[in-house]
Amino acid sequence: MARKASLSGFPELLPEERLVENHVLDTLRETFELHGFSNIETRSVETVDQLLRKGEIDKEVYGISRLLDDEADLVPSKKEKEKLALHFDLTVPFARYVVENAGYLNFPFMRYQMQKVWRGERPQDGRFREFTQADVDVVGDGALDFRYDVELALVVVDALSKLKIGDFKLRVNNRKLSEGFYKGIGLDDTAGVLRSIDKLEKIGAEAVAQLLKDELGATDEQAQAALALAQIRAEDTSFVEQVRALGVEHELLEQGLIELETVVGQAAKRAPGRVIADLSIARGLDYYTGTVYETVLVGHEKLGSICSGGRYESLASNGKRTFPGVGLSIGVTRLVSRIIAENMASASRKVPTAVYIALTNDEMWADAQDIAVALRDRGIACEVSANAAKFGKQIKYAEKRGIPFVWFTSKDDAGQLVHEVKDIRSGEQVSADPASWVPADDDLHVQVTAAE
Amino acid sequence: MARKASLSGFPELLPEERLVENHVLDTLRETFELHGFSNIETRSVETVDQLLRKGEIDKEVYGISRLLDDEADLVPSKKEKEKLALHFDLTVPFARYVVENAGYLNFPFMRYQMQKVWRGERPQDGRFREFTQADVDVVGDGALDFRYDVELALVVVDALSKLKIGDFKLRVNNRKLSEGFYKGIGLDDTAGVLRSIDKLEKIGAEAVAQLLKDELGATDEQAQAALALAQIRAEDTSFVEQVRALGVEHELLEQGLIELETVVGQAAKRAPGRVIADLSIARGLDYYTGTVYETVLVGHEKLGSICSGGRYESLASNGKRTFPGVGLSIGVTRLVSRIIAENMASASRKVPTAVYIALTNDEMWADAQDIAVALRDRGIACEVSANAAKFGKQIKYAEKRGIPFVWFTSKDDAGQLVHEVKDIRSGEQVSADPASWVPADDDLHVQVTAAE
Repeated sequence: MARKASLSGFPELLPEERLVENHVLDTLRETFELHGFSNIETRSVETVDQLLRKGEIDKEVYGISRLLDDEADLVPSKKEKEKLALHFDLTVPFARYVVENAGYLNFPFMRYQMQKVWRGERPQDGRFREFTQADVDVVGDGALDFRYDVELALVVVDALSKLKIGDFKLRVNNRKLSEGFYKGIGLDDTAGVLRSIDKLEKIGAEAVAQLLKDELGATDEQAQAALALAQIRAEDTSFVEQVRALGVEHELLEQGLIELETVVGQAAKRAPGRVIADLSIARGLDYYTGTVYETVLVGHEKLGSICSGGRYESLASNGKRTFPGVGLSIGVTRLVSRIIAENMASASRKVPTAVYIALTNDEMWADAQDIAVALRDRGIACEVSANAAKFGKQIKYAEKRGIPFVWFTSKDDAGQLVHEVKDIRSGEQVSADPASWVPADDDLHVQVTAAE
Repeated sequence: MARKASLSGFPELLPEERLVENHVLDTLRETFELHGFSNIETRSVETVDQLLRKGEIDKEVYGISRLLDDEADLVPSKKEKEKLALHFDLTVPFARYVVENAGYLNFPFMRYQMQKVWRGERPQDGRFREFTQADVDVVGDGALDFRYDVELALVVVDALSKLKIGDFKLRVNNRKLSEGFYKGIGLDDTAGVLRSIDKLEKIGAEAVAQLLKDELGATDEQAQAALALAQIRAEDTSFVEQVRALGVEHELLEQGLIELETVVGQAAKRAPGRVIADLSIARGLDYYTGTVYETVLVGHEKLGSICSGGRYESLASNGKRTFPGVGLSIGVTRLVSRIIAENMASASRKVPTAVYIALTNDEMWADAQDIAVALRDRGIACEVSANAAKFGKQIKYAEKRGIPFVWFTSKDDAGQLVHEVKDIRSGEQVSADPASWVPADDDLHVQVTAAE
């Protein structure tokens, strides 16, 4: 990814970089499954109708149409709802999937989904036109226990910790808390206040105060109160007292306080320092109704949030039934591109191969294949040399790829095979039996390790 | 997949069906890596220019364009080469990737790639508009040892055998053999003959003979000779004598015979009965120049080939350098849809969870989370009940999903936690320690097993 993509916004990785990405994806998958989440994939396309249903016209959607059908697409009678487009996130497709398959699913339904999504935005640092997201959500039928809001914080903290990408902070807030507080101080356009507060990091407190006064008609006192709330941060439940000290009362505020206290309290106990209450988190225009989450990689704050989400009172609905949900989405490509660009982690070799089986002469190729079968049976990845080039050249083949071992076979005077295996890093060469030899654990598979 | 897709040609799986697909993908990945192949992904889009470069105008390509940019697309000045489309296979993108990244890759470059591709064809049994392919190829810089033609047959036979999908036949032929033979009998339009022979299974020998005579001006004798060649099949190298018995001589034929003898001879030794020489295999319009492969699932011949490929003298070229390759492509969606539709394999449970941790009362939720952490530390997937419903209801939650174990915790008179775990299939309930209890190996992870 240090190389320039040949098509702007559509990054492609070299094999050794893909090892890092696969390590991230494998770690996420393993963690999500340890927490009981099932994997699904949804189709890459939705009807245009479906994608714009939530008014998400600000997303840059890619429509698709058969090239041979170009003219048909220009016929105005082609119905909008039959037009197809690539999905721009995994939430809208998941909501449709839940409604369509509600009769086949068990609720609460815990699922994770790791797929590519597309947005035709202007590419820039950390923003791509094709990228991978990893979403993890729980969705209920009619109701969903609040405890899943805690569970979701714990699963992503577990997953991100296992990635060993350094320190990160899961910043949590609660919409009920914010909205209740704004109503309590007499600002009823809570969406408007949230939109302004969302700009706090970008434009600063003074400018936000001005916005609140100019656009929402807030008094100086109201603006200062809203800002005072947004400035509260805590790694434990001490934020509750700080909010109470502001002297605002509202039923919704009270509900939100209890919810956020539960999430942060449990998280502080299980992952000290990872989860903080941050009462400035607003999550812009997204339609959350309770807990909201954002995650920053410490030292990489400019990258933006690498994992965000929240609680929806109604993730999906089919008119009769409503499906509330809570979940988060990890920006895998954003994260991996940064890991690679800054060498935050790297692979121990370029290829899966642990053993390169050299050829002494071309007649021994079939013997070499027998050795390969014996090694693979024990899970040892190996390649057989395609020809009996000079040993120096065969060793160089392995060296270039970082393959740790080269296997040599010759015949003794009695015509028996004699095996030796060389660790080409140390130069050490020892007798070995294809039926029993094993490499050290660290050499068996490619290791992806974080830079210290 | 028994359910009808809500968008024709765009199948979606239920979580328990996705377990089967993931099992297939995991097995392929594991096998490819054991043989030393590296994973890459290419972007989903290519320029229209690139996709049509090989004259593949018979593929139904999906173009993409930003919805907000609709009008710009109608402006005729928009250059064709800037238009983007979804890839319809993984070979064209791989060829471009190799040329673009040649300076960063080690040749011979062994790669596998498992991604979605799109074709706007009319959906029918085994044909989809969005589907997953798994490609495995080796590509050389300037030259590529013939032995990789054998290696590729061995890796796919290994992979398909491990899938336990029942008997299959990898049918192998060689373009040099066929073309040399046709030239030897005086039919110089070898592409024309191949196109006709390709229809053998569909329209029968008599109709093919007529085609050869009508369209290529073949004599009755030439047509019969071409058909005689196409009727040769053998599970070992005996086909060589059968071809020689037809009394045709040509240098290219001789080369092809030696190559096919090597592939089938080695394969017959290592995977008896799996690989057959089938001299009718033509692979239609694809631009192969040596070995060609097709694979049928025995008893599911109507499904068509589930794994096809061959040798290209020039997979890619940048003008100065030529990159020959050999590889195969497995139709994962075609295969998985059949496995699911005919219950050829199934998952031992619907979810990854092995242990459902029940709640005796709501106050014990934090204790239950501690138990979950202890179990997950040993790789045991578990979920904590979100509320202290009646035990019967909690057990039902596990039963519905096929979760084998439910964990119960209570407090004794001294306030100490007492743990028991119940196998809800047998009803057996025993004392257990969260720090050391492990389920049987078969219960630890979801097992996907073939129907016997």
